[in-house]
Amino acid sequence: MSRERPYRTVSSRYLWRSAWYNLRQDQLEAANGSAAVYTVVEKPGGVWIVPVTAGGEIVLIEQYRYPVDDWCLEVPAGNIEPGIAPEVMAARELAEEIGGQARELIFVGRFYSLNGICDQVAHVYVALGVALDQPRHEATEHISLRLLPIAEALRMAAAGEINDGPSALALLLSERVLRARILEGGA
Amino acid sequence: MSRERPYRTVSSRYLWRSAWYNLRQDQLEAANGSAAVYTVVEKPGGVWIVPVTAGGEIVLIEQYRYPVDDWCLEVPAGNIEPGIAPEVMAARELAEEIGGQARELIFVGRFYSLNGICDQVAHVYVALGVALDQPRHEATEHISLRLLPIAEALRMAAAGEINDGPSALALLLSERVLRARILEGGA
Repeated sequence: MSRERPYRTVSSRYLWRSAWYNLRQDQLEAANGSAAVYTVVEKPGGVWIVPVTAGGEIVLIEQYRYPVDDWCLEVPAGNIEPGIAPEVMAARELAEEIGGQARELIFVGRFYSLNGICDQVAHVYVALGVALDQPRHEATEHISLRLLPIAEALRMAAAGEINDGPSALALLLSERVLRARILEGGA
Repeated sequence: MSRERPYRTVSSRYLWRSAWYNLRQDQLEAANGSAAVYTVVEKPGGVWIVPVTAGGEIVLIEQYRYPVDDWCLEVPAGNIEPGIAPEVMAARELAEEIGGQARELIFVGRFYSLNGICDQVAHVYVALGVALDQPRHEATEHISLRLLPIAEALRMAAAGEINDGPSALALLLSERVLRARILEGGA
């Protein structure tokens, strides 16, 4: 979608910065000349990876998320570090979060995670032939793995039973690849 | 999912507040006694509404989103105002954003939109029998409506062609209701 930007950024300043995200306040000028202010949550792009084992199971993570004070069902995910390509980051996150090594990483799509306030782009991959080893993060009781048959994980995502939105969408965006490569033969 | 919280909130303070969202910094104590800091984007719950006309078309909004500097395909959505029930807010947003009146509003699910940093809960509704009138927002060139056959909108969402993530997920969460009520007869 290519059209002219309806706003021009006049100036920017940071209200807050951290290792995880920043708060940037911009002064804007609209096409009609009027002034406006927009405060953006600046966050690196992220990778969301749908891991499928050689045995045909999807590996989900169940973890406590402080902002929502709840346990969430998710796929492995993480921020993209500067200078690192998304697919390299995806392989790294897979190893760090679930100790997985993938035979093949397939890009399935990208989306804006919360475009009204945040600039983050989410990149989604399917990881096929994942062999599980020991995850590299510190073992805590806050994270556990859950292996599910592919069809069951897809059913849960479509039924609203995956409470982390980006993970649910990552699963559903992966459906075509999973059907083509695994559920309906092949790979 | 119910387990003990792995963190206790010791204190909270606001780093920034606005009409749209707040930045709240919490001092935490982990179960093992160690201290931590978590900065949360506090945002009201939101409603995402998948509008279906009596003629069987899905109404999407194409609008410019400043944080991502891009034009996005979305379903009508908005923040839930204090004291307003999500389904009341859904009906109101539908009227405001696309001038739509629904014959029936069906809850299809909820999800956390960005649980690593933000506390927002997204509530998803399908609006059936939507009659389009004039939208109440100021007419600008930044927003336009796009009507698509249901199957085409669902295909686009599953194929990663709806670049707003929560909207894509809202469409896919609605698929079961749409199939039961419209695509496969009924309604």
